[in-house]
Amino acid sequence: MKTPFAVLNFFLVFYLSAVLCVSYQPTWESLDKRPLPDWYDKAKIGIFMHWGVFSVPSYGHSGAASEWFWHNWKRNKPDAGTVQFMKKNFRPDFQYTDFAPMFRAELYDPYEWAEIIQNSGAKYVILTSKHHEGYTLYPSKPSWNWNSMTVGSKRDLLGELAHAIRNKTKVRFGAYHSLFEWFNPIFLQDQKNNFKTKTYVQEVLMPEIHDLIVNYKPEILWADGEWAANDTYWQSKQLLAWLYNKSPVKNTIVTNDRWGKGDRNKHGGFFTGGDRYSPGTIQKHKFENAMTIDRYSWGFSRPSNLNAYLTIEELLSILAKTISCNGNLAINIGPTHDGRIVPIFQERLSQLGQWLKVNGDGIYETRPWHVAKDSSNSNVWYTSKNGTVYAIVLKWPGSTLSLAEPMVQAKETKIGLLGYKGNFSFKSQSKNKGVIINIPPLTVAQLPCKWAWVFTFTNLKNK
Amino acid sequence: MKTPFAVLNFFLVFYLSAVLCVSYQPTWESLDKRPLPDWYDKAKIGIFMHWGVFSVPSYGHSGAASEWFWHNWKRNKPDAGTVQFMKKNFRPDFQYTDFAPMFRAELYDPYEWAEIIQNSGAKYVILTSKHHEGYTLYPSKPSWNWNSMTVGSKRDLLGELAHAIRNKTKVRFGAYHSLFEWFNPIFLQDQKNNFKTKTYVQEVLMPEIHDLIVNYKPEILWADGEWAANDTYWQSKQLLAWLYNKSPVKNTIVTNDRWGKGDRNKHGGFFTGGDRYSPGTIQKHKFENAMTIDRYSWGFSRPSNLNAYLTIEELLSILAKTISCNGNLAINIGPTHDGRIVPIFQERLSQLGQWLKVNGDGIYETRPWHVAKDSSNSNVWYTSKNGTVYAIVLKWPGSTLSLAEPMVQAKETKIGLLGYKGNFSFKSQSKNKGVIINIPPLTVAQLPCKWAWVFTFTNLKNK
Amino acid sequence: MKTPFAVLNFFLVFYLSAVLCVSYQPTWESLDKRPLPDWYDKAKIGIFMHWGVFSVPSYGHSGAASEWFWHNWKRNKPDAGTVQFMKKNFRPDFQYTDFAPMFRAELYDPYEWAEIIQNSGAKYVILTSKHHEGYTLYPSKPSWNWNSMTVGSKRDLLGELAHAIRNKTKVRFGAYHSLFEWFNPIFLQDQKNNFKTKTYVQEVLMPEIHDLIVNYKPEILWADGEWAANDTYWQSKQLLAWLYNKSPVKNTIVTNDRWGKGDRNKHGGFFTGGDRYSPGTIQKHKFENAMTIDRYSWGFSRPSNLNAYLTIEELLSILAKTISCNGNLAINIGPTHDGRIVPIFQERLSQLGQWLKVNGDGIYETRPWHVAKDSSNSNVWYTSKNGTVYAIVLKWPGSTLSLAEPMVQAKETKIGLLGYKGNFSFKSQSKNKGVIINIPPLTVAQLPCKWAWVFTFTNLKNK
Amino acid sequence: MKTPFAVLNFFLVFYLSAVLCVSYQPTWESLDKRPLPDWYDKAKIGIFMHWGVFSVPSYGHSGAASEWFWHNWKRNKPDAGTVQFMKKNFRPDFQYTDFAPMFRAELYDPYEWAEIIQNSGAKYVILTSKHHEGYTLYPSKPSWNWNSMTVGSKRDLLGELAHAIRNKTKVRFGAYHSLFEWFNPIFLQDQKNNFKTKTYVQEVLMPEIHDLIVNYKPEILWADGEWAANDTYWQSKQLLAWLYNKSPVKNTIVTNDRWGKGDRNKHGGFFTGGDRYSPGTIQKHKFENAMTIDRYSWGFSRPSNLNAYLTIEELLSILAKTISCNGNLAINIGPTHDGRIVPIFQERLSQLGQWLKVNGDGIYETRPWHVAKDSSNSNVWYTSKNGTVYAIVLKWPGSTLSLAEPMVQAKETKIGLLGYKGNFSFKSQSKNKGVIINIPPLTVAQLPCKWAWVFTFTNLKNK
Repeated sequence: MKTPFAVLNFFLVFYLSAVLCVSYQPTWESLDKRPLPDWYDKAKIGIFMHWGVFSVPSYGHSGAASEWFWHNWKRNKPDAGTVQFMKKNFRPDFQYTDFAPMFRAELYDPYEWAEIIQNSGAKYVILTSKHHEGYTLYPSKPSWNWNSMTVGSKRDLLGELAHAIRNKTKVRFGAYHSLFEWFNPIFLQDQKNNFKTKTYVQEVLMPEIHDLIVNYKPEILWADGEWAANDTYWQSKQLLAWLYNKSPVKNTIVTNDRWGKGDRNKHGGFFTGGDRYSPGTIQKHKFENAMTIDRYSWGFSRPSNLNAYLTIEELLSILAKTISCNGNLAINIGPTHDGRIVPIFQERLSQLGQWLKVNGDGIYETRPWHVAKDSSNSNVWYTSKNGTVYAIVLKWPGSTLSLAEPMVQAKETKIGLLGYKGNFSFKSQSKNKGVIINIPPLTVAQLPCKWAWVFTFTNLKNK
Repeated sequence: MKTPFAVLNFFLVFYLSAVLCVSYQPTWESLDKRPLPDWYDKAKIGIFMHWGVFSVPSYGHSGAASEWFWHNWKRNKPDAGTVQFMKKNFRPDFQYTDFAPMFRAELYDPYEWAEIIQNSGAKYVILTSKHHEGYTLYPSKPSWNWNSMTVGSKRDLLGELAHAIRNKTKVRFGAYHSLFEWFNPIFLQDQKNNFKTKTYVQEVLMPEIHDLIVNYKPEILWADGEWAANDTYWQSKQLLAWLYNKSPVKNTIVTNDRWGKGDRNKHGGFFTGGDRYSPGTIQKHKFENAMTIDRYSWGFSRPSNLNAYLTIEELLSILAKTISCNGNLAINIGPTHDGRIVPIFQERLSQLGQWLKVNGDGIYETRPWHVAKDSSNSNVWYTSKNGTVYAIVLKWPGSTLSLAEPMVQAKETKIGLLGYKGNFSFKSQSKNKGVIINIPPLTVAQLPCKWAWVFTFTNLKNK
Repeated sequence: MKTPFAVLNFFLVFYLSAVLCVSYQPTWESLDKRPLPDWYDKAKIGIFMHWGVFSVPSYGHSGAASEWFWHNWKRNKPDAGTVQFMKKNFRPDFQYTDFAPMFRAELYDPYEWAEIIQNSGAKYVILTSKHHEGYTLYPSKPSWNWNSMTVGSKRDLLGELAHAIRNKTKVRFGAYHSLFEWFNPIFLQDQKNNFKTKTYVQEVLMPEIHDLIVNYKPEILWADGEWAANDTYWQSKQLLAWLYNKSPVKNTIVTNDRWGKGDRNKHGGFFTGGDRYSPGTIQKHKFENAMTIDRYSWGFSRPSNLNAYLTIEELLSILAKTISCNGNLAINIGPTHDGRIVPIFQERLSQLGQWLKVNGDGIYETRPWHVAKDSSNSNVWYTSKNGTVYAIVLKWPGSTLSLAEPMVQAKETKIGLLGYKGNFSFKSQSKNKGVIINIPPLTVAQLPCKWAWVFTFTNLKNK
Repeated sequence: MKTPFAVLNFFLVFYLSAVLCVSYQPTWESLDKRPLPDWYDKAKIGIFMHWGVFSVPSYGHSGAASEWFWHNWKRNKPDAGTVQFMKKNFRPDFQYTDFAPMFRAELYDPYEWAEIIQNSGAKYVILTSKHHEGYTLYPSKPSWNWNSMTVGSKRDLLGELAHAIRNKTKVRFGAYHSLFEWFNPIFLQDQKNNFKTKTYVQEVLMPEIHDLIVNYKPEILWADGEWAANDTYWQSKQLLAWLYNKSPVKNTIVTNDRWGKGDRNKHGGFFTGGDRYSPGTIQKHKFENAMTIDRYSWGFSRPSNLNAYLTIEELLSILAKTISCNGNLAINIGPTHDGRIVPIFQERLSQLGQWLKVNGDGIYETRPWHVAKDSSNSNVWYTSKNGTVYAIVLKWPGSTLSLAEPMVQAKETKIGLLGYKGNFSFKSQSKNKGVIINIPPLTVAQLPCKWAWVFTFTNLKNK
């Protein structure tokens, strides 16, 4: 099996065998027919993590996210704050690569991370195996001397997390991978050739992804940086055919839609649209809202003050809107260069976890209801599961809660609150216009949670 | 006035002039008679900040606080975790002093700090001008080449904060100063001489404090590290006489009680006892409870996870207990070596600030009531001011709140809640055993704050 | 011309076109027929320079040369001194790659180097474009992030020297290039596959050499590290065919014999045998004695004391022996990581230059005589040119100098001394046993040079 | 004996006891009467070593010596090259103190240094215990955290050399000490007070010198930096009285003349005038010519090329001139920050040692003759000892050597050459105008040395 072009051509080989079997073919027509493995839709919530050499300066601000540090600094019209930061703090010929040896991760404890992630209630995690800077968090032959095993921590940062997650939790492990790179000269040469050559894809990208899949078996492959070229250049369809037909994760792997210029919201697995994608209406095609707790950055940013961080109320509001519309929520946190998840992130994840312990029934494994948001109360979002309808209420009502959507049946319908024993009395609004629920005067001590409450409806007319 | 021993002897000179005037004499009998400037008791809440070279490793854990890093590492039976941390991450001959050039404070913005401190509701701030490591946060002649102006940030870190605090806020500025030093050879020589020589005090400590007071005019001088010798060695009484009689802050400066072995809770200004001093009963002599939001460290500690940080509920509980017993609360946070107050600290301080906006009336400028804690409800602490009694209630009551201490007068007494309009109905418990208050069913939206509520009583029998 | 395998296959393409023309074919039979460009034999003396990441630790000693630092440290049975050096001076997880950012070359002035080289009298210079560590001294796509343009000095160290040499001197520029690499995972994988795959050669080595030749046009390609595999794996014959037929330096490029296991002293251009190769007898095939002024190291070694450096007398002795036997002498010096040629190297090169100014006539453009060394005086080595025979005499004789080889003709033969006016009287030894020359009592002030004197013979019987 | 001002006042104490005994008094009248310990005049040659934090940048050039780096960089009109060097290679807020942790001396082997020094033929060595930068090469209480034991190498660099020198050689150990400091704020304050205060002298300088003398017992105290103030401020006379009367080296210590503004060539031990002091005529008062092998720097300077270093011929010329005029020669070399004496210095010292092995008889323990230089031959310098006159001849003569000064006696006078057996014939020049010596045609192999030859004359008329 080892030919001189061995690794380069393994996709071709698998493609041929695929054609002979009854497998997916490297066409969108065929690939788009693959059903999304159902664990993903049930999971609803994931943790996204952006970690890399950019975590060393960890310098971002509104309009200049920290993980884009290289670009903010080196692009044609650079970000003035970033340029000033470098000028003030480093010698003139200091380069981006000089940050890499400082990416020591000396306090990194993947088991601790696994525990934090699990306690958040998230069901999957996605780590940047490689961001646009090209530095991989696992040993990579094509990117040797520019990966975490060789420069910086000298550890297989990704492998260690995969291991800890699987040993300690039931959370699923996924990997983000940037297709393009900012300054890899092999890619830049292809680009200069108008992508008529594919040296980068053949010698760097495909071997790199191959190793990633075979060695770490991620169940999500979250592509990005696809906008630079079309999917023919990236060989994305061949890659997906291999992933779906032959790879060790062929049965469970989930992918997104960033496979080439113009492919977003058209092809691939779940749709992502842009960052922080939240359409606000129910989507037929499963989507993911990848968003950040630090409003301005995916990578950790030292200058971010408390007001840069979402409050738990804001986070739950985004969660409700996303799930109600058929999305998953991928909540991003940026670890530090020394390997920590800082306490403010822990706090938000812990608050989320407390909330989900009470209210998870209205989130996990639910489906959108016939409508996402109550038409008379914009603070109320719906989900449903097994005949129960869940109304996520972002602000605590007064003595009554009026809702336009649930059609009650005076005797059969039961209305309750997750985490609270007993049912509430209600009456139908006139002319099938919904329901008015009587809310008892629950004190703060009696409430099941502090933010966002989930009312349950069973035996509605409109289940 | 400049003699060959100029600086050394200025205390002596002032002492002599003091004797001739009608001033405090350098005896405890005289010094202890000075009344505590009253701004301090009214202020109630301060922010304590431990910042120094120890903020570079910022490595602590339960039993090994980060600001004691040198000691944890170098003492006779060193802390195993600290030794391991150094062995793993640094070359064998790396020394504590090698951390100093890394204390860059490159993101330090004292105006931002001032804003954070002010928004916490604190009325004073205390910064470590020098901790036991001997490194001063201001340019120091006796400690030249071991201060922030010479090594590390090359900034007058303390001076910049003093300036910002005074420009931007009404918060008062204070300084912590360690009398002894772990490894200053001049001190060690005095120690070896059984403190029969005082070279360190004369050549280092006194000139250093003199400059601190004259140049920065702190209104608190928070001494520490006094346990190594008695106050005769430290020349504490002479120092205090000068502070009270002649210094530029003679009218407003407040001091503590750490002036020599055996002096705590006996002599000086406010008492401090040990760290996190909280006697739980009303103290005649004003005291301060200096405590930390990070349970384990005064200096910033990277390994501290969320569970190391006090919750806001815990913090308010400590606050209530302290104020009720005649204490001030000095809440410590540890800035990072690059000059940040991390968001988790910002979050706690912001929560405190929100709470004080509603409830500050029951804290600032109050005095202990005749009893600190309700004898029938250990979650209730009292303060009083101008005829009003405040009951800080840590857990929200059910439909009634029974208290043993307030003696109500059926018609005259009014019972309210800070941040809430209207009064509550009540009835006297039988036999002058207190009051039962009827608590209306306030929803979470109606409550004036999320944690700890302050009930007010006017026209009680026992004001 | 750009196919998907563009760069990889350019050798194949050129090979095919070569077959159609009247060019060298990629067989030793054909390649070995190429005459060595004659500038090389005439030049006689070159300067070799070993510079790389190893120049940062610059730590070597007898038995552990500094340029092999990685190997000394990391091989199976490592060099104890090197291990101790690392243990004592660096943190435990410090890796070889961590040295690269320190390779700053901040004092590197290639024009100064060019002047030093020219003044030594050498006619060519060879710089390590890449040593076994894999780090290239020029921007390299396959070795991106492990070359001087990206990590360390951020300069094209090789390009700058090539430019300065050509601008300022008539010295020719050459490049040393290691075929194998110690720790490039792509090479290691090929090795693990018993060299049945050639990914490293195709994706790394050939593109790298291609760029080197096309961009810098070196007139020597000095291969090394060939012993790991045979020349089929390395594609050496194809490379040489391209170099000789098509490359921009096809007319003047000189190569050595390190093209695959077993090829030394058999195939290629000049022979090199082992390091410091000096056979001591006249060789039919042109060879080069590559040797070092620091006896123990090719890279700069800080621990080398004066006694590690050859004296000028030793250097001239090696020179005489090498040239007399049909060799060229490549004299190695190791620059420092900050870009200097240290004064002791300058001193030896300057002494050599002074000597060659007087005696260069007996070195440059000479050919071996019929015998290398005088059979009766082992301190005398011969060269010849245009009917003149040169005897390099390493020790100054007494009043007569007896030589066994020159057959004099009493009247026609003239015997002189380079740098000295006038001829010496002589008489033939009995029975054609050579000559006895009368040496006048020249004082130190009258001698043309301080070490090694070159006597000239014209009109000998045996020219 | 320990009073509160213990160390400060020990000079006073000793002074008083001195007055009571029959000792030197702290007046120049008394101190200048002390005879120079005679070992010093006999020794003739010393090695001077400038080592300090300046050895880290080790950046100097003509007009900006490397050991004045701080001053070149920070003075009012700074040296442009130095400013450019810093700007190009360091971050903007990099300060001089940041160099100190890099002063690692990791390759420092004092026994190796001792051997190099001894082999040079020098009889004493002087190391900078403290240069104007204030950093001491030994643990210092007043300069704690700014000395080699605390910052940088963590070694007692001076103590280790003193130990090795005494263990391995018969060379005497001395210390250079700068009285003033460029940026010690305690000194700057005294200066600002027009030296009416002496805090620096009392608290820093005197304790520092006291420790130096008592702990390391140097036999030379080479003061410098005295020009900033007069000797009253420096307390120099008290110090000298203590050194001569009471110190542990009172019998053998030698001092120089840099004890206060205006004292040079007037007071103290040997005279030094300016740097590289070489009056060229015989001096009544013993002097020392402190000079450098690197023409431009006392500290090691990386930019110094070979032409910055004196040749051995130049060095011997300076030596001859100095000794002939009643001077000692202190030959300076600058070690590197990592603890090496670079090979070019080793080469010069080794050449000097070889020369002295042959010619030391004309140097050590000699006295000036009645004239320093031959009046008819400026390349000839005289010394004398026990009736023998030595003529150091810098250029080898032709067949005769004519000298104007030696008055020969035809039969009694013997003329020889050190290192050469046999005497030379001669004749008297007419009218007592000196001598003409017949020089035999000695070949380079017969000469006793390569540079500078010493002719001996016994039984001259004018011994």
